[in-house]
Amino acid sequence: MSASPVSAPATPRLYHITLSPFCRKVRLVLAEKRIEVELVEERYWEAGSEIFKRNPAGKIPVLRLDGRLMAESQAICEYLDETVPSPPLMPTGALDRYEVRRLCTWFDDKFNDEVTKPILSERVWKKVMKAGYPDSRLVKSGLRAVKDHMDYMTVLLEQRKWLAGNALSLADFTAAAHLSCLDYISDVDWDRSATLRDWYATVKSRPAFRSVLADQVPGVTPAPHYAQLDF
Amino acid sequence: MSASPVSAPATPRLYHITLSPFCRKVRLVLAEKRIEVELVEERYWEAGSEIFKRNPAGKIPVLRLDGRLMAESQAICEYLDETVPSPPLMPTGALDRYEVRRLCTWFDDKFNDEVTKPILSERVWKKVMKAGYPDSRLVKSGLRAVKDHMDYMTVLLEQRKWLAGNALSLADFTAAAHLSCLDYISDVDWDRSATLRDWYATVKSRPAFRSVLADQVPGVTPAPHYAQLDF
Repeated sequence: MSASPVSAPATPRLYHITLSPFCRKVRLVLAEKRIEVELVEERYWEAGSEIFKRNPAGKIPVLRLDGRLMAESQAICEYLDETVPSPPLMPTGALDRYEVRRLCTWFDDKFNDEVTKPILSERVWKKVMKAGYPDSRLVKSGLRAVKDHMDYMTVLLEQRKWLAGNALSLADFTAAAHLSCLDYISDVDWDRSATLRDWYATVKSRPAFRSVLADQVPGVTPAPHYAQLDF
Repeated sequence: MSASPVSAPATPRLYHITLSPFCRKVRLVLAEKRIEVELVEERYWEAGSEIFKRNPAGKIPVLRLDGRLMAESQAICEYLDETVPSPPLMPTGALDRYEVRRLCTWFDDKFNDEVTKPILSERVWKKVMKAGYPDSRLVKSGLRAVKDHMDYMTVLLEQRKWLAGNALSLADFTAAAHLSCLDYISDVDWDRSATLRDWYATVKSRPAFRSVLADQVPGVTPAPHYAQLDF
């Protein structure tokens, strides 16, 4: 009897949508860790979507890895960092790790609630999902709030090389995931802070960012500078 | 010259409010780790509140520890677990840690959005903050959603000893922090699941839970069974 063929492990698959900051965060971490991934668009708002079969929370992203379905971007990213340690995206000291996690929540919770979600919902998702016209009050409120957040990031970056300390970390990719979605539709005023622009230019020029910069959402044209490394 | 007196380290202080699930989560972890803490009520909605001086995100809880001000309950709890390892609240395997973090986000994000926030906002905070009358549609929507969450928790607890695996973890305290707030105002139908009731009875009977069970919100009487270990 001949030996059974060894089946190659399936390529990881990410169920995602293009302009979701949470999906982008996982994509950036996968790319930074040089883990190849197959991207599958998950149009969870359409009839027939099987999102609840993949994630009982009904949310994207979902990562299929080693035969398992994994959900929640922060939990996935910390898992990837623990299992594929190079390059590290979490520092080694407990206090430094706290600061990375505090800032990840800052962006995924506060920045998302005040900026990413209202602006993208009104300016992109209502169009894509054919769910009515944008509410300009929500867009304006998001555009007001983004200024305060940019100022806070500038204060941090004037004290540190990267957002959470002196090493690139998951906090930088989390923040960049949100800002890159807004930048796609040209809603970041980079003239407000040279410090912040320099930080984003550095993050954006990493090879891990290439796939995100090549994104195209049908019907939503990216800003002319979106994919330019010198903007 | 006599030796300078050694100044005793200040007792940790938690700026909190009583029925916040995020504050309770940190209180439970501090108590489980036997870290004494001074509780200071942070009425952040009142004029003159200094919350933004303590946390630029303007949110509670804030923990003053070793002269530092720390924010974001999940980041604080992971820091406490890393620096005070006994008893451990995070498992050692990467996949088990992923599952704890996934479920912490489940409760702090999804459960909070669908259940804790709408019910407590309408039934408690509007009264405490003198901000109008409860919107019964939001309360009803929360009470409908809590059933699905209880069913999901029951499914998990039928496969495992604790929510995230076979050891007590931060996921159990996170879930219990949310459920205990609802239980204070009697909004958990324990008859729905004997499995879930048993789990909650076990968590509730831990010494770490005592301070939470002694809570009293002025003007909001706790349910008669709230502090009973046999309910």
